[in-house]
Amino acid sequence: MAKRIGKGTIIFENKPVIISSGAVVGKKEGEGPYGEFFDYVLEDSRFGEKTFEQAESKMQKMATAYAINKIGLKADDIDTLCAGDLLNQCIGTSFGLKDYNIPLIGVYGACSTMALSMIITSFMIESGAVNKGVAVTSSHFCSAERQYRFPLEYGSQRTPNSQWTVTGSGAALLSNSGEGPVIFAVTIGKIVDLGVKDQNNMGAAMAPAAADTIVTFLKDTNTKPKDYDAIFTGDLGLVGSDLLYALTDKEGIDIRNRHNDFGVMMFDIGKQDAHSGASGCGCSASLMCSYVMEQFKKGNFKNILYCATGALLSPTSVMQGGTVPGICHLVNIKTL
Amino acid sequence: MAKRIGKGTIIFENKPVIISSGAVVGKKEGEGPYGEFFDYVLEDSRFGEKTFEQAESKMQKMATAYAINKIGLKADDIDTLCAGDLLNQCIGTSFGLKDYNIPLIGVYGACSTMALSMIITSFMIESGAVNKGVAVTSSHFCSAERQYRFPLEYGSQRTPNSQWTVTGSGAALLSNSGEGPVIFAVTIGKIVDLGVKDQNNMGAAMAPAAADTIVTFLKDTNTKPKDYDAIFTGDLGLVGSDLLYALTDKEGIDIRNRHNDFGVMMFDIGKQDAHSGASGCGCSASLMCSYVMEQFKKGNFKNILYCATGALLSPTSVMQGGTVPGICHLVNIKTL
Repeated sequence: MAKRIGKGTIIFENKPVIISSGAVVGKKEGEGPYGEFFDYVLEDSRFGEKTFEQAESKMQKMATAYAINKIGLKADDIDTLCAGDLLNQCIGTSFGLKDYNIPLIGVYGACSTMALSMIITSFMIESGAVNKGVAVTSSHFCSAERQYRFPLEYGSQRTPNSQWTVTGSGAALLSNSGEGPVIFAVTIGKIVDLGVKDQNNMGAAMAPAAADTIVTFLKDTNTKPKDYDAIFTGDLGLVGSDLLYALTDKEGIDIRNRHNDFGVMMFDIGKQDAHSGASGCGCSASLMCSYVMEQFKKGNFKNILYCATGALLSPTSVMQGGTVPGICHLVNIKTL
Repeated sequence: MAKRIGKGTIIFENKPVIISSGAVVGKKEGEGPYGEFFDYVLEDSRFGEKTFEQAESKMQKMATAYAINKIGLKADDIDTLCAGDLLNQCIGTSFGLKDYNIPLIGVYGACSTMALSMIITSFMIESGAVNKGVAVTSSHFCSAERQYRFPLEYGSQRTPNSQWTVTGSGAALLSNSGEGPVIFAVTIGKIVDLGVKDQNNMGAAMAPAAADTIVTFLKDTNTKPKDYDAIFTGDLGLVGSDLLYALTDKEGIDIRNRHNDFGVMMFDIGKQDAHSGASGCGCSASLMCSYVMEQFKKGNFKNILYCATGALLSPTSVMQGGTVPGICHLVNIKTL
């Protein structure tokens, strides 16, 4: 049985294993510092489809296929899919995964979706009912701009603290047995809303949630940042990362030596015109499912925290003067 | 440990108990045949808020409060919330539940959301890590019309096979112990897409998914419709229910004697101008969390199937010529 400790951290008994993963990204992401780690890099944003939304779906389908096929499995071997994305009504997922014929759990957690999908899949494996499940998500710069901001054709100017939505998808195959790092513990995040109303400054909106979840986890487990090889957040960007330090400092916890943010990592920010960094479900998902898993394989990582943050806004809530509530889900991944 | 049987049905060992529930609906729903069963009926669609979206959030907050407070518990006693809705980026949920300060699992399953939330909460309880969790969802006629079709002010005419989105919210409080019917088994649905493209005929789009999940469950458990007091779908409406019979007949299964559809039940269809019936996450959720739970209390129901269906469309996918894929999640609720 899984065990709940402290204020909300859950330690799994059966320790779901991440036995495989797949990552597909866009051209710009492929040209970034981690380009070599991805399974597939798109040549253009349409990916042979008629619309950006369809291209996003195709990425999700492909990342899932990589995760399954890489270790010689077939879709039939997978018991569940758990997935979501940023698009209205999560159509990236519905159209991307509909041909798999696998039971689907749809989730919504904005950019925290990858961690959320891994958490739910872990619970299903822990329960004994599911042997193998894929957690997957995606985002696409062009579909996100059209939906959240302006169609690309408007050529609108971006604010300095804005983040660039990643074109990419990551899929992780979790199993009740096999080789790979395990999901040791998780903290399900609460909504934290400090009243930030600027939808172009999502890092600021999400930093309080990241701080809340990270502090909860460290206190619940009675551990310190130095006990981990890395603490990854995704995606606070440069602005949000600074705010995170200010908030964790207040709790007497200095995470600087161990922290890195997927939104800061994805692009060579200065050269690639990414302003405050990257964002989008596909950002942390694609880096987790490529670079991070590779470091576990090489033995460079043995114990990390993956803290995925989401900004729970919609264009409607913004237009109605709403705040941008944030949420952060944490997954502790370990080599046993 | 939970057990997986057949093609995808899961039987829980710990049998999460539905110890309480709450249901809040709009005026029209309150005037329908089941009006007497709801905890609270709104006097108007705004519910004292500035926007319909905020009114929807308030309903979700209130239904959750009813479920928790009715049995003398407090928000602090609840380990997790699992919720979603139809609005872009699920803002009904984010803004409705943000003040609870309870870890939140966000889901997206269109109108299948209530069953999906109950399934995920059941897995968390089964794992041993969660003692009490609330599954909740909502929909609102005015916010749904604005988002999926036209703003109400346009006064657009509805097609005969269209369904009326319910203004309502339902919340179920699941627990690892206590009094009430239990979640005995579940079947997580697959996406089924037979190519229906008419977004005004969602019953037709969802019926194949309902048939697929119901047939899977009955075969997996080797049971027949007559073994259940009722088989509820939500929400196929009149058109979709007829299609469901045609599809299950093909499998040699006649469900007519046991079947009822929440979309058909919610309104006095002829008198209340509901065309093919009702729909929306809040439809099956509010009837499940009021009328159905009341029948369990009275002993009228001892064993039912709750089959919640979702149409996985968005206005974007429709405008791009996409189909309307369907999904159906099933929950078998029993008195032990």
